[in-house]
Amino acid sequence: MTPAKKTTKKKAPRVMILLGSKSDLPVVEGAGPLLDRFGLSWEIEVASAHRQPAKLHRVIKRGEAGGTEVYVACAGMAAHLPGVVASLTAKPVIGVPVAGSSAGGVAGMDALLSIVQMPPGVPVATVAIGSAGAKNAAVLAARILALKDKAVARKLDEYRAELARG
Amino acid sequence: MTPAKKTTKKKAPRVMILLGSKSDLPVVEGAGPLLDRFGLSWEIEVASAHRQPAKLHRVIKRGEAGGTEVYVACAGMAAHLPGVVASLTAKPVIGVPVAGSSAGGVAGMDALLSIVQMPPGVPVATVAIGSAGAKNAAVLAARILALKDKAVARKLDEYRAELARG
Amino acid sequence: MTPAKKTTKKKAPRVMILLGSKSDLPVVEGAGPLLDRFGLSWEIEVASAHRQPAKLHRVIKRGEAGGTEVYVACAGMAAHLPGVVASLTAKPVIGVPVAGSSAGGVAGMDALLSIVQMPPGVPVATVAIGSAGAKNAAVLAARILALKDKAVARKLDEYRAELARG
Amino acid sequence: MTPAKKTTKKKAPRVMILLGSKSDLPVVEGAGPLLDRFGLSWEIEVASAHRQPAKLHRVIKRGEAGGTEVYVACAGMAAHLPGVVASLTAKPVIGVPVAGSSAGGVAGMDALLSIVQMPPGVPVATVAIGSAGAKNAAVLAARILALKDKAVARKLDEYRAELARG
Amino acid sequence: MTPAKKTTKKKAPRVMILLGSKSDLPVVEGAGPLLDRFGLSWEIEVASAHRQPAKLHRVIKRGEAGGTEVYVACAGMAAHLPGVVASLTAKPVIGVPVAGSSAGGVAGMDALLSIVQMPPGVPVATVAIGSAGAKNAAVLAARILALKDKAVARKLDEYRAELARG
Amino acid sequence: MTPAKKTTKKKAPRVMILLGSKSDLPVVEGAGPLLDRFGLSWEIEVASAHRQPAKLHRVIKRGEAGGTEVYVACAGMAAHLPGVVASLTAKPVIGVPVAGSSAGGVAGMDALLSIVQMPPGVPVATVAIGSAGAKNAAVLAARILALKDKAVARKLDEYRAELARG
Amino acid sequence: MTPAKKTTKKKAPRVMILLGSKSDLPVVEGAGPLLDRFGLSWEIEVASAHRQPAKLHRVIKRGEAGGTEVYVACAGMAAHLPGVVASLTAKPVIGVPVAGSSAGGVAGMDALLSIVQMPPGVPVATVAIGSAGAKNAAVLAARILALKDKAVARKLDEYRAELARG
Amino acid sequence: MTPAKKTTKKKAPRVMILLGSKSDLPVVEGAGPLLDRFGLSWEIEVASAHRQPAKLHRVIKRGEAGGTEVYVACAGMAAHLPGVVASLTAKPVIGVPVAGSSAGGVAGMDALLSIVQMPPGVPVATVAIGSAGAKNAAVLAARILALKDKAVARKLDEYRAELARG
Repeated sequence: MTPAKKTTKKKAPRVMILLGSKSDLPVVEGAGPLLDRFGLSWEIEVASAHRQPAKLHRVIKRGEAGGTEVYVACAGMAAHLPGVVASLTAKPVIGVPVAGSSAGGVAGMDALLSIVQMPPGVPVATVAIGSAGAKNAAVLAARILALKDKAVARKLDEYRAELARG
Repeated sequence: MTPAKKTTKKKAPRVMILLGSKSDLPVVEGAGPLLDRFGLSWEIEVASAHRQPAKLHRVIKRGEAGGTEVYVACAGMAAHLPGVVASLTAKPVIGVPVAGSSAGGVAGMDALLSIVQMPPGVPVATVAIGSAGAKNAAVLAARILALKDKAVARKLDEYRAELARG
Repeated sequence: MTPAKKTTKKKAPRVMILLGSKSDLPVVEGAGPLLDRFGLSWEIEVASAHRQPAKLHRVIKRGEAGGTEVYVACAGMAAHLPGVVASLTAKPVIGVPVAGSSAGGVAGMDALLSIVQMPPGVPVATVAIGSAGAKNAAVLAARILALKDKAVARKLDEYRAELARG
Repeated sequence: MTPAKKTTKKKAPRVMILLGSKSDLPVVEGAGPLLDRFGLSWEIEVASAHRQPAKLHRVIKRGEAGGTEVYVACAGMAAHLPGVVASLTAKPVIGVPVAGSSAGGVAGMDALLSIVQMPPGVPVATVAIGSAGAKNAAVLAARILALKDKAVARKLDEYRAELARG
Repeated sequence: MTPAKKTTKKKAPRVMILLGSKSDLPVVEGAGPLLDRFGLSWEIEVASAHRQPAKLHRVIKRGEAGGTEVYVACAGMAAHLPGVVASLTAKPVIGVPVAGSSAGGVAGMDALLSIVQMPPGVPVATVAIGSAGAKNAAVLAARILALKDKAVARKLDEYRAELARG
Repeated sequence: MTPAKKTTKKKAPRVMILLGSKSDLPVVEGAGPLLDRFGLSWEIEVASAHRQPAKLHRVIKRGEAGGTEVYVACAGMAAHLPGVVASLTAKPVIGVPVAGSSAGGVAGMDALLSIVQMPPGVPVATVAIGSAGAKNAAVLAARILALKDKAVARKLDEYRAELARG
Repeated sequence: MTPAKKTTKKKAPRVMILLGSKSDLPVVEGAGPLLDRFGLSWEIEVASAHRQPAKLHRVIKRGEAGGTEVYVACAGMAAHLPGVVASLTAKPVIGVPVAGSSAGGVAGMDALLSIVQMPPGVPVATVAIGSAGAKNAAVLAARILALKDKAVARKLDEYRAELARG
Repeated sequence: MTPAKKTTKKKAPRVMILLGSKSDLPVVEGAGPLLDRFGLSWEIEVASAHRQPAKLHRVIKRGEAGGTEVYVACAGMAAHLPGVVASLTAKPVIGVPVAGSSAGGVAGMDALLSIVQMPPGVPVATVAIGSAGAKNAAVLAARILALKDKAVARKLDEYRAELARG
């Protein structure tokens, strides 16, 4: 899979998906088609909070200037990325914990705790571990943006009716 | 503490806080003052997903009819309340895990996993365990509603500046 | 495997097996032959507590009207299904935790805690994680129904004698 | 608290509550009044599976001869009691995990796993850790016995209606 | 692998290895050659504490009558076997936890806790999880029996010297 | 409590109890009276494996020269003491995990794993966490020494009969 | 306790201790006297990685300009501070996990994993949870600086000799 | 892979990598090339703390005499090696936890706790579990030695710039 870039660089997407490492790309593979279905523009950016703090700041600056409304940040292990993003923006940040790929990983519980336990004043909206969580991050973004955008709300209703039919 | 009811029964609040049991009231004590600060109306409703499923349906029906924009659901142990709420509304649902009060409790990790691991299509935006999480649920609600409400956005900026001053 | 439907739709089975998702079918594969051995009619129904709350209510209504005596509900991850079933019936509900199939799963402990820790007044009789638990759910249903049905009691005694021979 | 003995020694109670140690008596304190409410006779017996295997066998023998219909067994730490009881009777056995009282305890998770993970063919119906679980063991016994006893079923319905009123 | 039976049925072995299920045979595969090396007679017996309580009593009775000095009991999941053996003999009992073979297992921690946390007065000498533990059970048996048997002590010294050479 | 020294320095005790720190003295408080009851001489020595490696070597040297038959080593947190003792003697070593006293401790599970998971060839006979485990270490020492000492065997039988009376 | 400031603002200390919140001050209380003993200048700075990212950058900038050689960063819960510091400096960073003070905390394991599991290229030297870890952070800083500073090496040797005397 | 030996036996390397078992060699495979890049001499020595205590003492003695500045010790399961090394030297010791290779392992958490929780006065600088941790141990050694060696500092800066380019 290659990271999809759906918009030109001039405007930022409504939903910006951030990864700390290219190796997390398979985790978010299912989020893009869902965001497309809800009519929400999106992009994936790769910027490590620890190895590339300057790049991460530039990416967030572009999002803030270009109108990004929701950030989705995925991270495993120490999993600091969603928290660092939440410290740099007032927009809702959705955190997706990623389970470590190596045998020594602790199956994503470490990442989950590192993302969900943010200090007072700087929340991250955390969803389930792994690709199931990444898909639900897209649905959560739609639930949030449906509050102000009737087209998104309508598409979300269709999606939920489809779920109910099983 | 007594559960605050700030609005008349005719309109539903912008943020509805749901508890499965009165014993969880202390957990959400800090959320109300923060929501007041952001200018967001709120109410607390107590309705157990397991003992009072009919009452819970009535409460959500009132929220849906009355214009509630964000639900905050707190639950411990089996912690099904936030998920049941998310199955009944298309609005964003924020889940607050509560640590069990008895010695046999497992310190909230059980509730965290029971809330965050929602199945595909029905996300719950999960925050930290306990009263710290409940306060951050209020801030997250403000981050979400600031996307469509400039007064909330302004108050959120003031709040974040205050945090930065330490 | 395909879900077995052993009875006509007019009457409900003595034991109704409920799954939140078709992907859990392999887990309950071993329960049916055991229930057959004990002479207990059974059916499998798939109804997600979160995506299909209305369908689930219909299924339980059929069971209540048609004479279902024991419900077996299997669920993984957030694992709310057994608890929701227990809130809708006064019959004994046996819960089978299912381990998550993805790498990010937490090996069924999450589901176990989400099922076993029901609030006061609404118990779920929980058995072991996965297909071993599903088989034991069948034996537990037989232990329960043997209290009122001598034919089941006799078959259960034969089964236990066979176990003792190893 | 002293262990209640409600029936004469001639007949065994409908529900026999078994403890491995007198120190677990506070855990089951709430079960008796609930069983009384459902009109079910009950007794508490203390017999350690490890220190008193012969006594435990005598107690179960009396239950089997005297008509006991449901066993409730509480145990902490290694928590073998419910499993040993299930190996000696064909009646339903409800297991209540008890959290260790010492600082070195592991908060009942150890007991939960030791009770719920019974091998194929010998299930224990496990409920929540501690006194909340013990109360629910009483309700589960009522759900089981209501299948064959209309008086119990009626009292169970009244109890559930009371729960629904909150 | 087939369970080795090195002695005639008339005398019991010095070290009796007990399994709850034939599926645990691979776990103890490495223990026999080590016991041979230390000159200790041994046998494997399969007897489930839960499904075959009567058979287990007979096996222990034979060991007690025939001069067994150390019991090694292996068990997974609920893992009650070592404790039940320790309740039936005054000889040292070494417990080997076995990790569950199914995906829903909890990697042996459950068995470890179920074995090591014996109640006051009835200890089980617990070693590491799985086949590494089973081998060390053989070495521990040799350490115990070397206290009274110089031939064992000499072979143990040779073994330790070999370890030190790496 | 002060560490009891029951024997003169010339001969080593039959059972030597080793602590890494004086703060672990309360944990072993109950072991001494039990060893007295079984007629086994004992002493407590405090020697940290990490801060006092030379002292620890001297203590073991004295035990080896003076006829110590069983070592009991207690340790918390990193809990290396029992393993280091087992590397320095061929006698049976019983390990007692100690739960951390500070709030940041992990309730003894860490110590348990650090003691029980010894590498191939160097077993430690591990018992339960804390003072319950320390008492059982005394009983396990008696079970081991009863194999070669009829007086110990007789006292152990009396002790077990007393347990059975409850 | 008040945070000690031992040096003037012109030069930065050799060891800079960073806290995310004033509430962590008791944790590091024991580190200062140890650093004094080793002759190492030190200061405590409070700067939250999430609420005060700009302040944290200023503090690190002062350290880098003023000659700080080792950073000690303490953090609980999400525990991002040590990692963020390590992303901003090439000096050794020692991380001290802090156990959450609230009942819903997970006893420091969460913080430990969030600190120790840094991504490739950006290590944090992690020590034990809580105040024991903070003291050891001071000793580790001395071990590091003793490599280039004979006075520190001499004081470290005295300290270790004192430990060995017990 | 075979353990690289880059220096003659006369001088000890600046960084000595210690393993308890040859089976841990793959874990440290990535550390050597990184140490080469930073211009730091290194060697791997295999010496079990439990099976080969005398050999381990000889290896450390050579390091102390030959000028070793940093020790990296890797260990799994009981994981005592890093602590034993830290008890024998005043140099900084970096500990790398190794996840157990067998199915019964507990994914490295056991080793992590056994390494990081050193007692007061004897710290081990712990890094992440497995080969990712081993690589970071090399970077941490470089951060430590860059404090006194400008060539190392320059190479470390180049390495960090490369990381920032992604």
